[in-house]
Amino acid sequence: MRQRRDVEVREVGTRDGLQSIQTVFSTAAKLEWIRLEAAAGVPEIEVGSFVPPKLLPQMADSAEVVAGALAIDGLTVAALVPNFRGAQNALAAGARKLNYVLSVSEAHSQANVRRSVQESIEDLARIVEFRDAHPEFATVTIASGVATAFGCSIAGRVPLADVVTAARRLVEAGADELAVADTVGYGNPAQCREIFTEVLAVAGDVPVAAHFHDTRGLGLANVTAALEIGIRRFDASLGGLGGCPYAPGASGNVVMEDLVFMLEAMGLRTGVDLDRLMLAREHMANQLRGETTRGAYALAGKPKGFVGAAG
Amino acid sequence: MRQRRDVEVREVGTRDGLQSIQTVFSTAAKLEWIRLEAAAGVPEIEVGSFVPPKLLPQMADSAEVVAGALAIDGLTVAALVPNFRGAQNALAAGARKLNYVLSVSEAHSQANVRRSVQESIEDLARIVEFRDAHPEFATVTIASGVATAFGCSIAGRVPLADVVTAARRLVEAGADELAVADTVGYGNPAQCREIFTEVLAVAGDVPVAAHFHDTRGLGLANVTAALEIGIRRFDASLGGLGGCPYAPGASGNVVMEDLVFMLEAMGLRTGVDLDRLMLAREHMANQLRGETTRGAYALAGKPKGFVGAAG
Repeated sequence: MRQRRDVEVREVGTRDGLQSIQTVFSTAAKLEWIRLEAAAGVPEIEVGSFVPPKLLPQMADSAEVVAGALAIDGLTVAALVPNFRGAQNALAAGARKLNYVLSVSEAHSQANVRRSVQESIEDLARIVEFRDAHPEFATVTIASGVATAFGCSIAGRVPLADVVTAARRLVEAGADELAVADTVGYGNPAQCREIFTEVLAVAGDVPVAAHFHDTRGLGLANVTAALEIGIRRFDASLGGLGGCPYAPGASGNVVMEDLVFMLEAMGLRTGVDLDRLMLAREHMANQLRGETTRGAYALAGKPKGFVGAAG
Repeated sequence: MRQRRDVEVREVGTRDGLQSIQTVFSTAAKLEWIRLEAAAGVPEIEVGSFVPPKLLPQMADSAEVVAGALAIDGLTVAALVPNFRGAQNALAAGARKLNYVLSVSEAHSQANVRRSVQESIEDLARIVEFRDAHPEFATVTIASGVATAFGCSIAGRVPLADVVTAARRLVEAGADELAVADTVGYGNPAQCREIFTEVLAVAGDVPVAAHFHDTRGLGLANVTAALEIGIRRFDASLGGLGGCPYAPGASGNVVMEDLVFMLEAMGLRTGVDLDRLMLAREHMANQLRGETTRGAYALAGKPKGFVGAAG
């Protein structure tokens, strides 16, 4: 029986984190991480990325990782797919959820995936069409990231109208979920309220998730603002794994264990056991060669008398 | 002419930070820190603590630091005072604001200042009476902390009713400002909304400030929630200086530069120049022997195209 959750936290460190560090995890080490974190109660994990192995050798074993992760009871096995080819490969590997990414910033879109925003939307439509044409993939969820929604390190400011237009067109193209992403850690709580209010208005029944980076320390502040607006799905990475090997000190995603602590302290059930989550963190941290983890909860532990949201 | 501010940020690292680390700053180094941070636009600094020097040798030069800081144009020179004797000494030294502290938790109050909550309120009333009886101190502000409002590392949970009662009685006793403090970093955004809503209701015209610790990474998330409720005065420490020499990894106050970045990004004018604030941070960090600073903004810098709230 799956536990009732108020908020879904989703691990992306196994993709967003690992692709941003120098240490290469073995397939077995990735799978042990995924198993331990699923055992702690994390309901969804982005286990890899179906990009050309030449571009991201850390993700070359994504098909094997998906296959291994599928054996874990109750876990939603997600994978990042940059394009139609990647989506086909992820579906063939058995991924239960595809996380496609559209960059709202034209400059970032060209730099990241060498196509325009318009072409990205068409590609998503093609992926949806392919899934729909194959009954064996009927239950696969196709989510789309709405990247650089809070600003872009190439273009600077990204107009809110462009974010909203992209979100609306992704929904029209058949996205089953949107994940609005502060790709480079530019966002602030006021902007979160504005963006998520507008995106929810065009998303209709399509769930909207938030993907924040902690680059300027505002990850959990942004979560707080997004929660207010009604967002209930958040990406995070264990130990805040990530950053960028070319940008010393740059931070990764919101720290998973700090996020879970915050939500549970607020009375929002995540279904995640913090003590078991720490076991997954320990395993992950033990693999690192030179990189450090982040996170305050891991150092401070629970407050005296703390009880989680489930009581 | 003082700049118009939407939010007041107040430096407490010169007291809360310095008393929690091993490195002892010289009087000259403290004053240079204070000068640089005031020059960056920080309007109020808690420059020291009038506790017995035997208890906190780092604060033994507080009278000299107050005297030096009084020469800085436009700066509100505040000092922590634990009791009536400390208040008399701070007034004699020329402090423009006294930050008295009451612990809502009886256990913490006894451990910290060896008196009951009731005795603390009586002491505050006595300090107010003393100030009022001396015309030369008529313009001195007497603020009171409402400490352990979010929980206590000795007692665990602290009932909201006790926080509200303490706040009401401090106002009745003549406090000019309340600073509700998450002394041990137990607070969460939901609790912030609840506590600040209730405290504002009993505070009447008395301004209410927030003092958060980043112990579990929720400092700026708590600021976000408090801002919503209408709080516009926040304590912070440059580089997140603080923590506790006996608790490795324990974090100090909210990081000043991350706080200023967040507020300015949200369109809230702080009157603080981030680039000049970084000069103060550099000076402070150069004094440290072994301790490290915290903070994301210092590593990541401004987003491309960033303009502060003042335009």
